[in-house]
Amino acid sequence: MKFALYQGPGVINNTDAAFSLMEAKATEARANGARLLLFPEMYLSGYNIGAAAARRHAVTQAGLAPAQKIAQKLGICLAFGYPERVGDQIANAAALIDATGTILLNYRKTHLFGDLDRAMFGVTGQEFPLATVGGAKLGLLICYDIEFPEPARRLALAGADLILVPTALMQPYDQVARHIIPARAFENQVYLAHANHSGTENGLTYIGQSSICGPNGAVLALARHGEELLFASTDPSHHAAIRRADPLLTDRRPELYAPLATSRH
Amino acid sequence: MKFALYQGPGVINNTDAAFSLMEAKATEARANGARLLLFPEMYLSGYNIGAAAARRHAVTQAGLAPAQKIAQKLGICLAFGYPERVGDQIANAAALIDATGTILLNYRKTHLFGDLDRAMFGVTGQEFPLATVGGAKLGLLICYDIEFPEPARRLALAGADLILVPTALMQPYDQVARHIIPARAFENQVYLAHANHSGTENGLTYIGQSSICGPNGAVLALARHGEELLFASTDPSHHAAIRRADPLLTDRRPELYAPLATSRH
Repeated sequence: MKFALYQGPGVINNTDAAFSLMEAKATEARANGARLLLFPEMYLSGYNIGAAAARRHAVTQAGLAPAQKIAQKLGICLAFGYPERVGDQIANAAALIDATGTILLNYRKTHLFGDLDRAMFGVTGQEFPLATVGGAKLGLLICYDIEFPEPARRLALAGADLILVPTALMQPYDQVARHIIPARAFENQVYLAHANHSGTENGLTYIGQSSICGPNGAVLALARHGEELLFASTDPSHHAAIRRADPLLTDRRPELYAPLATSRH
Repeated sequence: MKFALYQGPGVINNTDAAFSLMEAKATEARANGARLLLFPEMYLSGYNIGAAAARRHAVTQAGLAPAQKIAQKLGICLAFGYPERVGDQIANAAALIDATGTILLNYRKTHLFGDLDRAMFGVTGQEFPLATVGGAKLGLLICYDIEFPEPARRLALAGADLILVPTALMQPYDQVARHIIPARAFENQVYLAHANHSGTENGLTYIGQSSICGPNGAVLALARHGEELLFASTDPSHHAAIRRADPLLTDRRPELYAPLATSRH
C-alpha cells in the first residue's frame, strides 16, 4: 500500500482553510497513487495556539465531517491531529478516516508534553486502538508518545503493521527525528510515519525532518525543513521476511518486564 | 568520572593472551585518566568460536582472578564479557570488577541471539543487577539485549546512571550502532557505552562503530572500524539538568504498560 505524509506549516487558527489545504494535498497524494495521507499533530487548528484558541477550535467527532467528505470524494484515507471536545474538556486527538469517509480510529494523546500540552488539554488518552486498512493494521500515537518505548510496543504487541505519528517536534529535539523514529520502527519491526510541522509558530521553531521508516529501521523517505509530501509503500512480503530473519518480537521475555508496568522512577 | 572502552579484534581462543592485552589496554586507559575500561562481548575467549571452544574456555568467577589482579594493580575498574561456567552449562556473561579487584557485578545475557548463542549457551540470565562505582549506578547488558527496549528500561527504572554494553555486532546490523544505541541513552536519560569487536572472526564481519552516548542521546565518542580506545566522562550536574529539562522517566504511565509484561507476539 502506497501512503504519504504532509509536512508543512499548515494553517493556524482557521479550520476552514485547514480543510481546504487538506483537500488540495489529498488530491495531490491520491494523484500520485497514495491510499492514505497523514498530517501533523493538531493539524486542524495549529499546535502552539494556547488554551483559549484550542478550546475555540475544538470539535467533537461530528466536526470532522468535512474531512470525511474529502476522504470519500477522493477515495483516500486521511489521518490528522485535531483538538477534540470531550464534554467540558479538550483532548489532543488524532483521527483516521477511511476511503469511504468512516472514522475508523480516534486516538487521544496518552503522554502530555510539559506545560504546553497541559495548558491546552485536560483529557489524556487511556487506550491504544487499532484498525485495519487494506489488510494492514494501523495505530496512532502523537508526538511525545513516541519518545517512550512503551506506547509503540503496545501497538506492536497488538499486531500493528504501520504506526502513524502526527507530531509538532521543535528545536532542540532532533535526536527524536534522527534516532528515536528509526529505533521504534526497528525494535518493533513496523512501518512508521512521523509527520511534523515546519516553519515557526508563535515563537516555536519546528524542525521538519518528517520521515517514513521500514520494519528494519531503514529510512524510506526523509523530509528537509520546508513544505513537502513524502511517499513510501508497505510491502507485506518484505515485512514478513524481516520478522522471519530476526524474531525480535518473539524473542522478548515478558516475564522479566514486570517492573515496566509497576515502577515509577 | 572519565571512562573508556576498547574496540578491537581482541584475542581468539587464548585466554592468557586476552588477559595480557587487557593489562596493556588498561594501562593505556588509566594513563589517560580513565577510571573504568569496558571490553566487548566474550572478550576473554572470542565470540564466534563454537560450542566446544566456548566450553573449553569457560571459567567460574574464580577464573577471573587475573583480571582482578590487573584492576587492583592499576587502580581501574574493568568490565568485559566471558563464557561463564555455571554447573554443567555455559552462560554468556559479563563481569564488572572494581579498582580494588572486587567483582561487583556478574550479568548473564538475558536475550540469547539466534542459533549462534543457543549453540554455545545453555544458561540465560534472569536478573539485571546494579552496582555503584564512584557515586554512579552501573548496569550491564550484552549485545542483543539492547535491541529490546525493556532491559535498558529495567536498569533505568532501578536507577542506572551508566549502562555498559559489551557486544559482538556484525553485518548487517548497523541500524543498532547508528540508531538503537543513541535511542536507548535518550529515552532512559542514561550514559551508555557500547563496546564492539572489529575485524572478522570465523566468517563473521564485525561492524565496529562502538560508541559512548550521553543522557540526551548525544554521541560523545564514536569508533570507526579498527582497533581503538574511546573515552568520555559522566557529569552528574549535566545529567541532572537533562532529567530536569525533560522528565521522560517521571512522565511514564506504567498503568498503561501492563501488556508489555504479559503479552507475547
